Amino acid sequence: MIPFQMIVFLVIFLQSYTGLAYDPDPVNDYCIPRTEFSSIFLSCKNTSLVTVDDFIYSGIKDPGNFKHTGFSSIPVSSTVFPGLNTLGMSFVRADFDVDGVNVPHFHPRATETAFVLEGKIYSGFVDSGNRVFAKVLEKGEVMVFPKGLVHFQMNVGDSPATILGSFNSENPGLVKIPSAVFGTGIKEELLMKAFGLNDKEIAKLRKKFVPQ
Amino acid sequence: MIPFQMIVFLVIFLQSYTGLAYDPDPVNDYCIPRTEFSSIFLSCKNTSLVTVDDFIYSGIKDPGNFKHTGFSSIPVSSTVFPGLNTLGMSFVRADFDVDGVNVPHFHPRATETAFVLEGKIYSGFVDSGNRVFAKVLEKGEVMVFPKGLVHFQMNVGDSPATILGSFNSENPGLVKIPSAVFGTGIKEELLMKAFGLNDKEIAKLRKKFVPQ
Amino acid sequence: MIPFQMIVFLVIFLQSYTGLAYDPDPVNDYCIPRTEFSSIFLSCKNTSLVTVDDFIYSGIKDPGNFKHTGFSSIPVSSTVFPGLNTLGMSFVRADFDVDGVNVPHFHPRATETAFVLEGKIYSGFVDSGNRVFAKVLEKGEVMVFPKGLVHFQMNVGDSPATILGSFNSENPGLVKIPSAVFGTGIKEELLMKAFGLNDKEIAKLRKKFVPQ
Amino acid sequence: MIPFQMIVFLVIFLQSYTGLAYDPDPVNDYCIPRTEFSSIFLSCKNTSLVTVDDFIYSGIKDPGNFKHTGFSSIPVSSTVFPGLNTLGMSFVRADFDVDGVNVPHFHPRATETAFVLEGKIYSGFVDSGNRVFAKVLEKGEVMVFPKGLVHFQMNVGDSPATILGSFNSENPGLVKIPSAVFGTGIKEELLMKAFGLNDKEIAKLRKKFVPQ
Amino acid sequence: MIPFQMIVFLVIFLQSYTGLAYDPDPVNDYCIPRTEFSSIFLSCKNTSLVTVDDFIYSGIKDPGNFKHTGFSSIPVSSTVFPGLNTLGMSFVRADFDVDGVNVPHFHPRATETAFVLEGKIYSGFVDSGNRVFAKVLEKGEVMVFPKGLVHFQMNVGDSPATILGSFNSENPGLVKIPSAVFGTGIKEELLMKAFGLNDKEIAKLRKKFVPQ
Amino acid sequence: MIPFQMIVFLVIFLQSYTGLAYDPDPVNDYCIPRTEFSSIFLSCKNTSLVTVDDFIYSGIKDPGNFKHTGFSSIPVSSTVFPGLNTLGMSFVRADFDVDGVNVPHFHPRATETAFVLEGKIYSGFVDSGNRVFAKVLEKGEVMVFPKGLVHFQMNVGDSPATILGSFNSENPGLVKIPSAVFGTGIKEELLMKAFGLNDKEIAKLRKKFVPQ
Repeated sequence: MIPFQMIVFLVIFLQSYTGLAYDPDPVNDYCIPRTEFSSIFLSCKNTSLVTVDDFIYSGIKDPGNFKHTGFSSIPVSSTVFPGLNTLGMSFVRADFDVDGVNVPHFHPRATETAFVLEGKIYSGFVDSGNRVFAKVLEKGEVMVFPKGLVHFQMNVGDSPATILGSFNSENPGLVKIPSAVFGTGIKEELLMKAFGLNDKEIAKLRKKFVPQ
Repeated sequence: MIPFQMIVFLVIFLQSYTGLAYDPDPVNDYCIPRTEFSSIFLSCKNTSLVTVDDFIYSGIKDPGNFKHTGFSSIPVSSTVFPGLNTLGMSFVRADFDVDGVNVPHFHPRATETAFVLEGKIYSGFVDSGNRVFAKVLEKGEVMVFPKGLVHFQMNVGDSPATILGSFNSENPGLVKIPSAVFGTGIKEELLMKAFGLNDKEIAKLRKKFVPQ
Repeated sequence: MIPFQMIVFLVIFLQSYTGLAYDPDPVNDYCIPRTEFSSIFLSCKNTSLVTVDDFIYSGIKDPGNFKHTGFSSIPVSSTVFPGLNTLGMSFVRADFDVDGVNVPHFHPRATETAFVLEGKIYSGFVDSGNRVFAKVLEKGEVMVFPKGLVHFQMNVGDSPATILGSFNSENPGLVKIPSAVFGTGIKEELLMKAFGLNDKEIAKLRKKFVPQ
Repeated sequence: MIPFQMIVFLVIFLQSYTGLAYDPDPVNDYCIPRTEFSSIFLSCKNTSLVTVDDFIYSGIKDPGNFKHTGFSSIPVSSTVFPGLNTLGMSFVRADFDVDGVNVPHFHPRATETAFVLEGKIYSGFVDSGNRVFAKVLEKGEVMVFPKGLVHFQMNVGDSPATILGSFNSENPGLVKIPSAVFGTGIKEELLMKAFGLNDKEIAKLRKKFVPQ
Repeated sequence: MIPFQMIVFLVIFLQSYTGLAYDPDPVNDYCIPRTEFSSIFLSCKNTSLVTVDDFIYSGIKDPGNFKHTGFSSIPVSSTVFPGLNTLGMSFVRADFDVDGVNVPHFHPRATETAFVLEGKIYSGFVDSGNRVFAKVLEKGEVMVFPKGLVHFQMNVGDSPATILGSFNSENPGLVKIPSAVFGTGIKEELLMKAFGLNDKEIAKLRKKFVPQ
Repeated sequence: MIPFQMIVFLVIFLQSYTGLAYDPDPVNDYCIPRTEFSSIFLSCKNTSLVTVDDFIYSGIKDPGNFKHTGFSSIPVSSTVFPGLNTLGMSFVRADFDVDGVNVPHFHPRATETAFVLEGKIYSGFVDSGNRVFAKVLEKGEVMVFPKGLVHFQMNVGDSPATILGSFNSENPGLVKIPSAVFGTGIKEELLMKAFGLNDKEIAKLRKKFVPQ
C-alpha cells in the first residue's frame, strides 16, 4: 500500500521543473540525468548504468515539420538529448523550402556556428550598433552568429536547403522576434509608440502572432 | 624629428578599437585603462597614478536628452566609466516623460535589475516560451530582467518617471528591436515573410527606423 | 497513515540547507525556486506556475531598522527575492542617520556599484596594496567597490542619507570587519599579536562585538 | 628613414605570439583581430572596418590532405578564422578513407559534438574510470565527446566518410596520444615502465612517431 | 512499518550518483554536503551542523598503497573531502619508490601545481604542439602542468620521493594514458593503425592493461 | 639615432601596468609573458622560445624574511612566476617562529588549501555569519579556506612551523585586516564609531600600522 501522503509528496514533486545546471566547467566527466527524476531535480545516473546510447543522438537524420514560412527546425538541447547535460553544447537542424525563412531571432545564452549542409542561404545578423552583416552562403560554408545577437536566414536558391547549427550552451534559448513582440500581449499603446504604428496596424500584427 | 613610418605606425594603432576584457573573475583588484591608449589595447594605469575619481561616476545626476518616444537614457558601461573595467558591472539611468516608452529591447550579455527612483512604470519582459510578465511598478520597487530576454517599459503615471538599471556585465550591449529589425537593411522579402506584411507596410516601417 | 520513517525522512530533509547554484551562465531563462522545498534542494517552479510577482521586489521602499551606528541596511539576495536565483545579481538599500556609519566590510563574491539616492556620503575602499580611495559622494553619484575589497561609508551631511547598492552575484556575502575579527572567538593571543594590543584592550573590543 | 632601433622594436614584437583571450563571457559583440598586429597582441578592428566576410569561413568545402592513416582534418580555430575570436566556439572537418583512422586524441579545452555528414564511423571515447563508450554512427547521427576525454574514430563503411565536429572553445587544443607519448622525447625508462615494454619495443614506437 | 514502495523509492535514489556542482563562482561561503544524501543529490548541511572538522583533511599524512610501478597516490577530491565542495580546489599526495613512475596521464578539468616534498623527480609535460618540457626537480621546487596536458614523473634519486599536487577544480579527473588506451576495449584494428603495431603487439599491451 | 618621440612613447608605455588576464578557461596551452613587455601589456612568448624553466619555480626552498610577528611568507603569483599566467593557480610558502602569527587576512579572488609541512598550527576562518572554525593542525593535515573569507594562523607548537598554501587564481590578492583598516587613512570618526574606540585608541592603532 502506498501511503496517501507519499503520493501527495511525489505529485508535488513531479509538477516541478528543474534547471539548475550551468554551462561552464563541469566537475564530472558527464552527468546523464536519471530520467525518472529529471522533472524533479538533477540527479546523475550511476556510471554503471550509463551506456554509449546516452551520448548519441539520432533524431536529426531527417527534416522536422515545416511551418507556413517554409521552415523547419529541430533544436537539440540537453532537454531532448540528456547526454549534453553539463557539457555546454547543443545543436539544431534547420531545413528550408525554396524561399523558406528563419525569422529574425536570437539565442540569449549562446554563440552559434551555422554550417550549410545543402543549398544557398541568405544569412546574417545585426550587431548592437545596428549594423547588419548578411550574405548568401553556399554549401560547405560556415557563418558565426555572436552571442545574443539577432540573426536570420532565407533560402534564396531554387532547391531545398539545410543548415546544421551548433551552440556553446546546453540550452541556448530561442527568442523569435515577431512572436515575442507581437504575440505575447505587451500593452498596445507601448507597441504603437515603439513601432510608430496605429492601433489597427498593431491589431493586425497581433492577430498573426497571438496563439489562437 | 618623428620618422614618417612611426607616425604611420601610431595612426594605424589609433584607429583600432579594443575589446579583449572578459566579465568573470578579474586577476587584479582593478584595472583603470590608460586613456591615451584605450583605443589601441587595454593597458592598466600604474596603481600609483590611479585616484579615487577613477572609481566615481558623476554623469547621471540629471536626465539625458529625450527622444521622440518621450524617453531618455544614459548607459554607463566601462567605455564611459573606465573604473568599471574588468569588474563585471555597469548601470543606466532612464527617464520617462508622461507616456514615455522604452521600446522592446534586450541586453545580449547581462541580467538587469531595475529600481524605480520616481513614478509609475509599466514594466515587463518576454521569456523564451513567449510568456509576457508585466506589471505597473511603483517608486522603490525593483524588477529583474533575466539575461538576454526582451523587456520594455512605459510611464503610465501622470508625472515624469525615472529608473536606475544595473547590469552584471561591464558592457551589456543593447539591441532595440524596432531599429535592429526595421532599420538595418535586412532583405525586404525576409521581413515580409517573417512579419506577414506586404511590401508597402515594410517600407513604411523601414522609413521610420532606417537612419536618414 | 503517515509512516513514521517517512516523517523522519522529511524532517531530516527539511533541516538541510541548499546552496548549489553558481553565478555564471544560467542554462534557463530563470529558475524560481519552489518555496516548499527551497530548504531542501533547488527545484525550479514549473514555468506555468511562475507569475510576474516572482520577478518584482517591493521590500525596500522604506529604510530597515537602524542600529546603534546610525545605520540600517536591507540586503536583498536570492534567498530573500527568489526571482534572482541563477541570474547573478542582487542589491541592498542602506540608510544613514546623520553621522551614521557603515562599518568597514567586504563582499567575498561580488563587485558593488553604490548609487547615492539621498545625502552626502563619505565613501571609500582599500585595495590589496593598502591604498585607500575615499571621497564624499553627492546625490546621484555612483562609486564602484571592486570585488572582495574592504569598503566603508559615513553620512557626513546634515540630513539622512540613502544608498542603493547593486552586486554581480545573487548572494555576494557580507563580512563586517569589527564583528568578524573581534566578535567570533579567534584566539586571544593571536589577536593581541596581530593588532599589537594587550589582553585588556582585546577584551574590551571583544565585549563590544561578541554577541551576548 | 626608419630608425634602426624601431626596426628592432618591431621585429621583437613580430616574433611574439599572443594568446590572452578567454572563452567565457565576451564584453563586446565581437572582436575581429587586426591582422597586422595579431602576432603581437590582440587588438580589435574598428567596427567600421569589419565586414560580413569576417564572420564567414569557406575553407572546409572540401577535404584536407590525407595522411597515411587514411585520415584528413581541417581544424578551424580563431587562429584560422578570426571571426571566432572571443566567441567561444570553433569547428573541424574530418574525412576518412575506407578504414581511415582518427587516432586516440583529446581536446584539453573543449567538449565536442560530432555530426556524421557521410559514411559509417566507429566512434567512441574513454571516461576517467576507464570505461569505453563506442558504437558505429550512421549519416545524420551526432555523438558528444565530453570535455578533455580521449576519443577516436574509424571508417568502418565501404566508402569515404566525413564528420563535422564543433567545439565550445575558440581554441580547443589537440593532443594525439601516439605522437604526444612516443614522439616527444619522454625519458625512455619512464615509458618502458609505464607501458611494460622493453627498450627495443619503445625504440620501435619512437621511430614511428618522432619527427625525422 | 515502512511501506514497500518507499523502500523502492529510496533504493532507486540511493543507486544514483550526483555531480551537478560546477567549479566557478560559488554563491555561498561553503556547502558541506549532507552525507546521508550525497549519493542522491547535492544538499548542503545546515550551517549550524557544520564543524571545523568539515574543513580539515587528515588522510594524507602517510603514503598510500604502492603499485607495481613503484608509485602510490592519494587523490583528494570533493568526493573524499566534502569540505572542498563548490570551492574549486583539490589536491593529491604522490609517493615514489626509487625508480617509481607516475605514468603519462592528464586531468581533463584542471591545471596542477606540483610541489616536491622530498626527493629528486624527473617531471614534465607535453604541449599541444608535441613539445616536451621535462627536468629533474629537487626538494622545494614547484612545477606547473597546464590544464588538460599530458604529464609524467619518475623518481630519479636514490631515496623515496614525495610530491604534493594541487588542482583548480574540486574534481579534476584523471586519465592514465596506458590503461585508457590499451585497457578499455578500443577496437583492435584502430589501435593497430593508430600505433603502427601488429595484432600480437597490441594483444600483448592489452593483456597488461585490461583488468582481469 | 633614436628619435626623441619614440623614447617618450616607450617611457609612457613602460610606466603602465597590465592586468588583463582572467582566471577561467584559457584558450592556449599556456602563455609565458614576454618579460621585456610585461610592464606594458600581455604578449605571450613565441612557443619556440619557451623553455622548461618557464614552468618551474625554485624560490620557495627556504623561508622568506621574518617580520616582527614571527611570520614570513613568500607569495608566488603569476607576477613572480610567469609560467602561471592564464592558468588560474598560484601558491605561497609561510613560515612561523614559535608563537608566530599570520594576522587575520583574506584573498579577494581565491579559495586556499593550506598543507602543514612542519609544526603545529592553530588555523581557522570566519564565515559570513560570524562563525569561527578553528583548530590546531598537525604536520600533513590540510585545511581549506573558502573564497574571500577572513582566516588566520598561529604556531602553537614549540618549534618552527611551515605551511604550503595553494590558490585557484593566478593572483589571489591579499588583504591583511590590521593594516588595511588601521594603516590606510580611513577617516578617524568612522573607525571610532565602527570599533567603538575613542580617538586615542584609534591613534594608537594607527601609529602601529600606518607606514612611517
